Amino acid sequence: MDENLIYGKNAIIEALETGTREFNRILISNTARADEKIEKIKNLAKKNGVIFQFVGKEKLNQLAPEARHQGIIAQIAPIKYENLDDFIEKNSSELTSVIILDGVEDSHNLGAIIRSAVCAGVKGIILPSRRGVLINSTVEKTSAGAVNHISIIKVNSIVNAVQRLKEKNYWVIAADHHSKDNYYDIDYTDMNFALIMGAEHAGISKSLLKLSDFVVKIPMLTNFNSLNVSNATAIILFESVRQNLTIKSKKRG
Amino acid sequence: MDENLIYGKNAIIEALETGTREFNRILISNTARADEKIEKIKNLAKKNGVIFQFVGKEKLNQLAPEARHQGIIAQIAPIKYENLDDFIEKNSSELTSVIILDGVEDSHNLGAIIRSAVCAGVKGIILPSRRGVLINSTVEKTSAGAVNHISIIKVNSIVNAVQRLKEKNYWVIAADHHSKDNYYDIDYTDMNFALIMGAEHAGISKSLLKLSDFVVKIPMLTNFNSLNVSNATAIILFESVRQNLTIKSKKRG
Repeated sequence: MDENLIYGKNAIIEALETGTREFNRILISNTARADEKIEKIKNLAKKNGVIFQFVGKEKLNQLAPEARHQGIIAQIAPIKYENLDDFIEKNSSELTSVIILDGVEDSHNLGAIIRSAVCAGVKGIILPSRRGVLINSTVEKTSAGAVNHISIIKVNSIVNAVQRLKEKNYWVIAADHHSKDNYYDIDYTDMNFALIMGAEHAGISKSLLKLSDFVVKIPMLTNFNSLNVSNATAIILFESVRQNLTIKSKKRG
Repeated sequence: MDENLIYGKNAIIEALETGTREFNRILISNTARADEKIEKIKNLAKKNGVIFQFVGKEKLNQLAPEARHQGIIAQIAPIKYENLDDFIEKNSSELTSVIILDGVEDSHNLGAIIRSAVCAGVKGIILPSRRGVLINSTVEKTSAGAVNHISIIKVNSIVNAVQRLKEKNYWVIAADHHSKDNYYDIDYTDMNFALIMGAEHAGISKSLLKLSDFVVKIPMLTNFNSLNVSNATAIILFESVRQNLTIKSKKRG
């Protein structure tokens, strides 16, 4: 497919404001209520020279049959995936964190992970090109526009990517609920780190666990041990944020 | 509707094993592959005296048109909502935490919140009866069976519920990103607490914020301030878990 759709007023406003995406055109239902947000979109579209077109509601339903599109859809160029070496180079002047998803399959999960990652100051998401989900319209929507605030890196081999990151002074942390070590016992404040999260059912492959510097679990207060992968990612990332905002001075042992 | 559906092999196994739900029957596609999990479901169904029926795949698609049902659907009695006073009474002998959702609308979010809540040892979820989403088949599925491990409490008035909890010695914590205080500055280890999370767009109503003992935010490392409500809930809950597992001795100031 040569283009992605973004739907939902907030996501479209977000994409227009950040200006990182190339818009083909914006389609709006001729029965949509002209509220404040629609006005804002119109103005931003004008300012950015984006074509704005009224169409029948059926046209929108046909383009995005299962989406709550709120009467408005933008057709945009697909996201540009970055190269890992370019990413490393670009971020080499400051401490950087990146997430590696080892085959996450659900678009809602990927969108939510990207959203939390951006909030937590993570600079990149590494996705395998042949397993798991890539950026699609559902991911764009679920991310609430966060896809435009982070580098999305597609790699043929996660193992090679991890090795490259290690060469470049990244510490590799893998989340695995069989681990004895807890995620909050790592000091995240003074290192580049790459956090590997596994697929919804399969978890992280053994070869990746072996390559990791730390393997950590999220301890539970009950036997029901089954966090959603986006929630698990958020929990670990915001522990790193908490540490950065509170105990920056403590050094890694 | 008089019954709920659960679909997905894991969710059905979960519900059969916990034995908290009344099954009407289990429908399996006559083209489904008889894998290990299907065998397990068959055996559990026999053991529990649940009717097990082969049907055409179209029947399943018709029952759950938008679901990835994996060729198997269970028809079960709807979840039993609990009464708040019964819940408080039942849990009065130990420190208890509960989540209050002030109008969360998305089924996936509610399911993920319930899942993380159970993992974090939370004992109940309070939902308003007339706003937001209640327990439906999507919530059941997204919760990965966690709905069967927690009290689901439906109330007519969240304000009344909060007042009742305060009378019963619960501290009330509201999450609001306008707050100056950070969620990790509260000591969660030595109190009953009720955590209020707001609706996806509207946040928490002012009357509830006024009633709260603590209003906290999750600080971000960037200006992109837009966590998904299930991720935000998980972040706060697992800070309480972290504290319980590491600094139980520190008392609330």
